[in-house]
Amino acid sequence: MTDNVERFSGVLAPVVTPFNDDLDPDPWKLVEQCRWLLSQNAGLAVFGTNSEANSLSLDEKSMLLHRLIEGGIPGERLMPGTGCCALTDTVDLTSHAVELGCGGVLMLPPFYYKGVSDDGLYRSFAEVIERVDSEDLRIYLYNIPPVANVALSVDLVERLLRDFPGTVVGIKDSSGDWSNTAAMLERGWDDFRIFVGSESFLLRNMRAGGAGCISATANVNPAAIHALFESWESDTADDQQSALDAVRDIVQSFPMIPALKAIVARFRDEPQWNEVRPPLLPLTDDERQKLYERLDEIGFEMPDD
Amino acid sequence: MTDNVERFSGVLAPVVTPFNDDLDPDPWKLVEQCRWLLSQNAGLAVFGTNSEANSLSLDEKSMLLHRLIEGGIPGERLMPGTGCCALTDTVDLTSHAVELGCGGVLMLPPFYYKGVSDDGLYRSFAEVIERVDSEDLRIYLYNIPPVANVALSVDLVERLLRDFPGTVVGIKDSSGDWSNTAAMLERGWDDFRIFVGSESFLLRNMRAGGAGCISATANVNPAAIHALFESWESDTADDQQSALDAVRDIVQSFPMIPALKAIVARFRDEPQWNEVRPPLLPLTDDERQKLYERLDEIGFEMPDD
Repeated sequence: MTDNVERFSGVLAPVVTPFNDDLDPDPWKLVEQCRWLLSQNAGLAVFGTNSEANSLSLDEKSMLLHRLIEGGIPGERLMPGTGCCALTDTVDLTSHAVELGCGGVLMLPPFYYKGVSDDGLYRSFAEVIERVDSEDLRIYLYNIPPVANVALSVDLVERLLRDFPGTVVGIKDSSGDWSNTAAMLERGWDDFRIFVGSESFLLRNMRAGGAGCISATANVNPAAIHALFESWESDTADDQQSALDAVRDIVQSFPMIPALKAIVARFRDEPQWNEVRPPLLPLTDDERQKLYERLDEIGFEMPDD
Repeated sequence: MTDNVERFSGVLAPVVTPFNDDLDPDPWKLVEQCRWLLSQNAGLAVFGTNSEANSLSLDEKSMLLHRLIEGGIPGERLMPGTGCCALTDTVDLTSHAVELGCGGVLMLPPFYYKGVSDDGLYRSFAEVIERVDSEDLRIYLYNIPPVANVALSVDLVERLLRDFPGTVVGIKDSSGDWSNTAAMLERGWDDFRIFVGSESFLLRNMRAGGAGCISATANVNPAAIHALFESWESDTADDQQSALDAVRDIVQSFPMIPALKAIVARFRDEPQWNEVRPPLLPLTDDERQKLYERLDEIGFEMPDD
């Protein structure tokens, strides 16, 4: 295992994916948004849940990844989601990501079949690692039982990082259950990067030895979230956390993905950003207006780069 | 809308998918199994849940569909599962199925995002229908909330069949909840084909005006299930149902997919049939032995063609 791939820490955004009128992903708008996120110190967890990644085909995701690299986005700042239902899709997309120099991949377990055993999930990750067969592969596991409805147990995570040291190097815990994140932190795994799936847990995570957060709201509020990551030991940390929570509470009182896109659409003055792929729907005009008003009330703004 | 595509009724098997040592699907073994199923009067719902379809890539499914047709399987007996998470994948696979002359497709809703609205699911099916754009398309909706964790409400089904008459022509209800199937039957939709997802409900479904069943166990017990479909109005029907239930009870007391494959492996004397793709695991030798013993105790056998 080489040490030429640095491990991630800090704040990453599961970058929302822009669609054109035909519902095709728009690579250049995505490049533009990624550049802005980098300017705000956010890493790029493209193809996450909030990217509508599971509404995109393998070819669409491969195409977007190529365009991001062509567009000058540095591979080491990219942590694309590559976990699909089908073994062969996960292997293909993960291999592409490694070939393009991505700093890591965020890997969902196969999520169609429910009630599968830890042994079965282990077999799945092990098979992917064996097939991708690269010493540059860095896997961040993606635990999101509220959506995938397939959970990664703490024991399974431990087994994977012990058997694939230097390859399985971190996790995003979107269980929404702090006790689950805490249970992993308490294991004291050496240099294993534990990210929370929401900045609501960022301060707690940093105080307990975590690595940062990969959070939906980092699409629109990255600089402030990164500021807390930087200054979590300072006196202002609790106030910063409260300020982040106020923004998040507003955004998540609407359907999350269309709400994020509505905020980006206003920031860029590009209504096309409101488009989502089915089965999602854009916010209604009323919802959008209400969202904007509530964010205005607390003085929220997306800063220019 | 032409009438050149006849609607399905009777018994269909979600055909289990054979894998070789490299975990690649084996098209010719699949053709062979499909031929046997046809000889037992079962239709072919390939790429169902029990086919491990969601562990196969789009290319693998397209390849298998071509091989089935090349192998002489009549298109009008095929109802492949074509509902994927990604809109574009569903459109591609559904278009292939129509081009190859399949009698219908069984369509899951996109199943990654949870808590989506009926309007969002409607938008998804409508977009697929518009893009496939063929008067030969026949969609059987696939409602399987225990696995997909995304349910199709009775009102949504009604809206789809009203807005796409002749295209949305049936449903497989694998809710496992008879009251849900009954609620649809009570609506009295004209010539809408309602299949139950288990033969446990077959007699009730036939008595209430249903079209048949598409059931896991039809992979191994198709002739007996078809016999009940044929003779549901006879005096022997209740006894036939009990006999079917006895087989099913045994099979489903093991993990379903590997159990079905273990039974096929014994029938064909081909241990390779035991293979499953991760995240599933084959039965252990002990489990397999126990399964065989229990089936022997009730005198169960798969008949030759």
